[in-house]
Amino acid sequence: MNNPDNHQEINIALLVEYDGTKFCGWQTQHNLTTVQEHLQKAIFEITNQNVKIYGCSRTDAGVHARGHVSNFHIKTNIPTFKLPLALNSKLPTAISVKKAAIVDLEFNARFDAKGKKYSYTIYNEPTRPALDRVTSCHVPKKLNVDAMLKAANLFLGEHDFQAFMASGSNTKTTIREITSIDIIDEYPILKLEITGNGFLYNMVRIIAGTLVYVGLEKFSSNSISDIINSKDRKKAGITLPANALCLEEVYYEENIFI
Amino acid sequence: MNNPDNHQEINIALLVEYDGTKFCGWQTQHNLTTVQEHLQKAIFEITNQNVKIYGCSRTDAGVHARGHVSNFHIKTNIPTFKLPLALNSKLPTAISVKKAAIVDLEFNARFDAKGKKYSYTIYNEPTRPALDRVTSCHVPKKLNVDAMLKAANLFLGEHDFQAFMASGSNTKTTIREITSIDIIDEYPILKLEITGNGFLYNMVRIIAGTLVYVGLEKFSSNSISDIINSKDRKKAGITLPANALCLEEVYYEENIFI
Repeated sequence: MNNPDNHQEINIALLVEYDGTKFCGWQTQHNLTTVQEHLQKAIFEITNQNVKIYGCSRTDAGVHARGHVSNFHIKTNIPTFKLPLALNSKLPTAISVKKAAIVDLEFNARFDAKGKKYSYTIYNEPTRPALDRVTSCHVPKKLNVDAMLKAANLFLGEHDFQAFMASGSNTKTTIREITSIDIIDEYPILKLEITGNGFLYNMVRIIAGTLVYVGLEKFSSNSISDIINSKDRKKAGITLPANALCLEEVYYEENIFI
Repeated sequence: MNNPDNHQEINIALLVEYDGTKFCGWQTQHNLTTVQEHLQKAIFEITNQNVKIYGCSRTDAGVHARGHVSNFHIKTNIPTFKLPLALNSKLPTAISVKKAAIVDLEFNARFDAKGKKYSYTIYNEPTRPALDRVTSCHVPKKLNVDAMLKAANLFLGEHDFQAFMASGSNTKTTIREITSIDIIDEYPILKLEITGNGFLYNMVRIIAGTLVYVGLEKFSSNSISDIINSKDRKKAGITLPANALCLEEVYYEENIFI
């Protein structure tokens, strides 16, 4: 679909990949380099318009994305299919717009999201990684993957995940549903993939930290249900580092990017 | 095996992984930052001895390695199994010693190598990569992978690969044997894996460039034999960039690192 008329406001959704290493997260903050700020600047450079981009989630400093979705309203006659290449020519190499699409004027990348898929990458070998150092968390001691898989299954379904939320966070409800969780074993990489209808602040990094404790046999596989039921952050494992977390995909009622 | 006596000279082999992005290749050169130089410096820091490391191959600036092998002679009482962690504590994060082993005094990582495996990573999507930008070569136009696989098979066996050597290079013979070649299709990544008894200067990057020309249908699959037989560098495809090349493994008569 193309924008027929540059006097008519349209709503454009972007699918964006980024290496979060050098950014202070997604959301614009005073005097800090963020992905949102770079995108808004690139849009200005090609359209001469100041827009506000709405992101599907505010990823933390250091977190990566392969499928971040955002949207912004604009009047432009640049054909939408040309936007990714045009924006990429203005963006730092650590950010790449993969796709752009015109969406309903009411569409909001954050509030219309029905679910998200994250990955958490563990590098499980005695010596630290060199090539994968930017996107993985090094765990030197051999992990018991079978115990981790058994534990992972206990996260499935709808639960009150208060024990898996950074303490001090604010949210209306701490109930979330995890619809799929898997651990892919590609030695020396262990990739945790987790899909749910929404995630609390630091939830994936705390779940990953708890599963690593199971893999290290500090926690038993069966302890997961007790930790969930305790609603006590102190019972769960540590919050693992941000750099191994990646927002893989965001789900909406309909497929936005064909 | 451990070194029993620090008065006796031993020969130590190292298995090293590195992200070549910021190094001027493997080999020490005047005033340039190289992997060899960093390793020699780290060995000095932990043993107080100046050694010369012999590398299996002089990778170019920007080229990565997951399985680079080198060796050096030293008198030390540091247990060999402790070397990787000790050296890694002194090395930049882009270099990691994965394993160390005592080898025969006569062993030489370069001259005793019986074969090598390289990978070349192509990112085949219209928009450029962000997360994979350091380790891949972006080819925006959709490649015909079937044609590339057909062409790749024609490289197998012993041939005079003069057409696939950077012009101006010096070598006793341009005959090499390719024992295995494969293209792994994991959209949007296409990974070329190639194993042989030895490679001429820039040979993998020129083979990758030639296969990309086949994938772009600039060359037919069948043209490979004619290009090989021509022994003419100008008939082959372009030399693709260094940053997508990775030395995966080096083979010796016996398994050095158990």
